[in-house]
Amino acid sequence: MTPSEARTIIERTIESIEPLDGASLEAAGVRMDALLKPPGSLGRLEELGIKLAGIQKTDRPSADVKLSLVYAADHGVTAEGVSASPPQVSAIMTRAFCSGKAGINVLAGKAGAILRIVDVGIAVDYDEPADLIVRRVRRGTGNIRVEAAMSADEAAIAVATGIQTAREAIAETGARMVGIGEMGIGNTTPAAALTAVFTGRDPATVTGGGTGIGEAGQKRKIQVIKDAIKLHAPDPSDPMSVMASLGGLEIAAMAGAMLASAADGALVLIDGFISGAAALTAAAMAPLVRERMVLSHLSAEPGHRALAAKLELLPLLDLGFRLGEGTGAAMAMPLVEAGAALLSEMGTLAEELVHLKDPS
Amino acid sequence: MTPSEARTIIERTIESIEPLDGASLEAAGVRMDALLKPPGSLGRLEELGIKLAGIQKTDRPSADVKLSLVYAADHGVTAEGVSASPPQVSAIMTRAFCSGKAGINVLAGKAGAILRIVDVGIAVDYDEPADLIVRRVRRGTGNIRVEAAMSADEAAIAVATGIQTAREAIAETGARMVGIGEMGIGNTTPAAALTAVFTGRDPATVTGGGTGIGEAGQKRKIQVIKDAIKLHAPDPSDPMSVMASLGGLEIAAMAGAMLASAADGALVLIDGFISGAAALTAAAMAPLVRERMVLSHLSAEPGHRALAAKLELLPLLDLGFRLGEGTGAAMAMPLVEAGAALLSEMGTLAEELVHLKDPS
Repeated sequence: MTPSEARTIIERTIESIEPLDGASLEAAGVRMDALLKPPGSLGRLEELGIKLAGIQKTDRPSADVKLSLVYAADHGVTAEGVSASPPQVSAIMTRAFCSGKAGINVLAGKAGAILRIVDVGIAVDYDEPADLIVRRVRRGTGNIRVEAAMSADEAAIAVATGIQTAREAIAETGARMVGIGEMGIGNTTPAAALTAVFTGRDPATVTGGGTGIGEAGQKRKIQVIKDAIKLHAPDPSDPMSVMASLGGLEIAAMAGAMLASAADGALVLIDGFISGAAALTAAAMAPLVRERMVLSHLSAEPGHRALAAKLELLPLLDLGFRLGEGTGAAMAMPLVEAGAALLSEMGTLAEELVHLKDPS
Repeated sequence: MTPSEARTIIERTIESIEPLDGASLEAAGVRMDALLKPPGSLGRLEELGIKLAGIQKTDRPSADVKLSLVYAADHGVTAEGVSASPPQVSAIMTRAFCSGKAGINVLAGKAGAILRIVDVGIAVDYDEPADLIVRRVRRGTGNIRVEAAMSADEAAIAVATGIQTAREAIAETGARMVGIGEMGIGNTTPAAALTAVFTGRDPATVTGGGTGIGEAGQKRKIQVIKDAIKLHAPDPSDPMSVMASLGGLEIAAMAGAMLASAADGALVLIDGFISGAAALTAAAMAPLVRERMVLSHLSAEPGHRALAAKLELLPLLDLGFRLGEGTGAAMAMPLVEAGAALLSEMGTLAEELVHLKDPS
């Protein structure tokens, strides 16, 4: 696709995101309180059901078709020693996702979710499994410490690629919720940079140890992020340029997938820290996307709290996850599905009192 | 059953609860760290998988067969105005559980759990649905403010009834985990009394508003519990006598069901506040039961934190639930199942590196 086509796709997608349907939210709230339980006694599950009602424009929502999308790409900033794993692992894990033996395979499988893997920018050549969706925008990003992650055109194409791949998968499956995860060695560094920019916090407070670089490694990582922010002087009111200078190909695609899911009436399940950084970007591009999001869990990454606060979303789970891949989103799916089922499957007190002879 | 038979059943059940299998715990820990993910990156799911390994004596545990047990009974203390709902609601809801339209029906259904409902002490006559298990020990308890909830013999029979019904259901289904819930209008009062006794805390700090009695009602409820504890002078080192003087028929049966599940190698999923009070009692009777328990969620009832601390169990979920019925336990089941699946279905890094050609 051309950069101009990409920009048109992004614009039209953002324009088609609607506010939640007020009448359905209200009807679902009334129905929720009339169900065979004290009002409010199923806590956050009730919120989930009502949110789905507002998305689906009905007081009997459904959430049985679930989709897990995983975007994979590489990061030039790994040259700075910000990751404990060699960059080749992105490709190894992307292949593993197609062999069915990784964490997301098992957890999406248990959640009953359909899984799609998209390579939007792995750097190396590798044998591409048949069921891998290959839509590389470029082979890995630039090293953000010394150059832009990608050009403005590439950023637009990466976001539009996320939109297209999500839209295709939603159309094909009929998914009512989409968990959005990733694989990309080194990607906690751009995620922390984006989080610092969009939340206005000091990089030192939102940068963690990733998957095991130790204290010295973490200090180096913070310095790399500070250097990158100083070099690019990002403007948080221009989210596409922030993504181009500091982001990642898979992070851009994830932001696009979130916009597409919101536009197409599927609930957006944010996964961990990287997915959260994509959510910050998507929300900066289209504020209405936020109310169609659920923050599936609180990641062990320190920056996750900052981005949750900025998104004004309360994490659903707190299980100490720090794997990514969409694993946290997969674990939240049964809760979302159950929230919908309350409205669609429970009886109301009024209905049941008719059926049940009053005990004497 | 006779009281003497009941006491024999309880004794033999407690004797047959073993410590977790150390070799399997260790093997599962080693395997968990070798899986295709950074060690520890799936947080509490890893703990769940390893606990199941210790229970099932294998490093490849399974948790696909799930059972929800709901025990129902009435409470004489409702005469003191401690509940917002009339006591007839226990029978109405017990029937609703058999009609499939209540919260636990929907949530156990979504979790793929088999549901069994046991009446161990509903006070009123009602049309008993065909699939209800009726094992009434007596028709409701005495008003604990002025008399014992039940006799020592009745308490033993109620616990043994919980053991027998759980044992039958586990044998019939092959369940690997058992969620243990309840229905009993007024039962947050005996649950708070038991929590105060077993944790040594002031009743005022562990007594909540139940399902909506307001501030004045809560004060009355605290006074009722204080009066009851003064009258019966319970000794926490004699849990069966605490249960007889202050407990409930369904709470006693739940404690029995927990002992039976532990003895029969099924993981015990504690539900909310009432289920937690039963867990405190079971743990006081048989300390080894504790390491076979998972605290599914943090109830909105204030006493739940106190009992979680006493049990040294960290809640898995925090969703603001305060319904009971086993609904919180049902929502934790997918997490436990996923924890087992990590060990049984994920590949190890070593295995995958053989299958995956190194990218060049």
